[in-house]
Amino acid sequence: MNNAPRAHIDFRVRYAETDQMGVVYHANYLIWCEIGRTELIRTRGAPYAEMERGGLALAVSDASLRFHRAARYDDLIRVECWVEEVRSRSVTFGYLISRVDGDTPAERLVTARTALIALDPRGRPRVLPAELVLNLSAA
Amino acid sequence: MNNAPRAHIDFRVRYAETDQMGVVYHANYLIWCEIGRTELIRTRGAPYAEMERGGLALAVSDASLRFHRAARYDDLIRVECWVEEVRSRSVTFGYLISRVDGDTPAERLVTARTALIALDPRGRPRVLPAELVLNLSAA
Amino acid sequence: MNNAPRAHIDFRVRYAETDQMGVVYHANYLIWCEIGRTELIRTRGAPYAEMERGGLALAVSDASLRFHRAARYDDLIRVECWVEEVRSRSVTFGYLISRVDGDTPAERLVTARTALIALDPRGRPRVLPAELVLNLSAA
Amino acid sequence: MNNAPRAHIDFRVRYAETDQMGVVYHANYLIWCEIGRTELIRTRGAPYAEMERGGLALAVSDASLRFHRAARYDDLIRVECWVEEVRSRSVTFGYLISRVDGDTPAERLVTARTALIALDPRGRPRVLPAELVLNLSAA
Repeated sequence: MNNAPRAHIDFRVRYAETDQMGVVYHANYLIWCEIGRTELIRTRGAPYAEMERGGLALAVSDASLRFHRAARYDDLIRVECWVEEVRSRSVTFGYLISRVDGDTPAERLVTARTALIALDPRGRPRVLPAELVLNLSAA
Repeated sequence: MNNAPRAHIDFRVRYAETDQMGVVYHANYLIWCEIGRTELIRTRGAPYAEMERGGLALAVSDASLRFHRAARYDDLIRVECWVEEVRSRSVTFGYLISRVDGDTPAERLVTARTALIALDPRGRPRVLPAELVLNLSAA
Repeated sequence: MNNAPRAHIDFRVRYAETDQMGVVYHANYLIWCEIGRTELIRTRGAPYAEMERGGLALAVSDASLRFHRAARYDDLIRVECWVEEVRSRSVTFGYLISRVDGDTPAERLVTARTALIALDPRGRPRVLPAELVLNLSAA
Repeated sequence: MNNAPRAHIDFRVRYAETDQMGVVYHANYLIWCEIGRTELIRTRGAPYAEMERGGLALAVSDASLRFHRAARYDDLIRVECWVEEVRSRSVTFGYLISRVDGDTPAERLVTARTALIALDPRGRPRVLPAELVLNLSAA
């Protein structure tokens, strides 16, 4: 799946994201994955904010992360996100989080995967719109 | 206002709340204030969760904090909260956050004050229900 | 491994932990796991805070979470934590996060597992102290 | 002081930063202030990360925030930060947080001020280095 088109976004580590070990607290990487996912979905059609206003929410049902190296305060971070699998009611995303040196990812920090299920505004499972399935599959 | 009846709640500092300075990141104290406020409102009538379902939200309009000493990981913390002033559309709360030793507050960490305004479900200012004003004033 | 002795801790969902879907933002469950782990380690010898001051840090190397149901603001939450496996340089913990009704876990929300590796103060892998291995294995 | 040179930084609101009221949880603005402060300090000499490695930490001693309007998920946010006052052992920063439309700040969301005191690596008050005082005053 590593050849799937990827979206990416760069940002700096916030002081608030560090912990007393002197590195980024591990739960923050899950937040960073969501930032990458937001960018990927933006490039595949409507922004997620619009999707949600239109009655489709995506809720994380499974997440797995492997922590290779730790990010530090003020590091420049790149989150890459791609579609791993699309099904009628769910979609799985893959993530690569790296430290960026100059303009290129220099060090792999975290790899992750999350599965999301489609929910209607009342929180019940629903099918993904056909157009979104197409857009995500084309990814 | 220091004689106003107070609610309090105790909890331990989470690892996630520390930063690389080895102490609690300062924005977390604002979250802790909200935990104390939730307890105070619970003792003054309905839980805030019910208030919100009933169409009344309280949004913070002003906050000020003074940081005297830093909390550390696994410290036992006490948040005390009281009503400073009730008006028709807003209420101001005071807070004292301490480190607890045994069962008594041993060290003052942070003092704070927040003003909250009443909002309807569409986010427009509204008056506080008379009963809540009474309950909060009796505080 | 479900028969392994468990530590548990109860607390209420904070407003700060919700997101605009009206439920707890998923990354917070990873923070909650760490709260349960802290309690388990406390019952197996020294508090983690002391361990860290003594030159032993535990860093999360892998995490996986399954989200069954969503927690909501002010819900009473129980985190149960147990040891799944102890090795010379790493230890794996299991977690069950439930909504508590009265005094008993009423609804399974999240199940999770994290592997942690032992680090020295410079961030290099080290072996776990024999006593800690014994204490954790006895769990 | 509104004529003091300002640094600014833009970013999008993260889903994790929203709460169940459908807007950004208020404590996050304090984190955003710190992001603006990091950028200002970067433009006034060494990055804060280097300052801290060199034995100078800045700890927030006072904070006040006024919340005018709420930010929403995926909004483009601009944080502007400037120096309000420099003293031998402390420095006060001002902040303006806006929603950006196109490339210009379109709506004022939050105004804030934080005072920070200089600490040595053991957490004791110290004087600010003369060069930093000069650089910040020139701001």
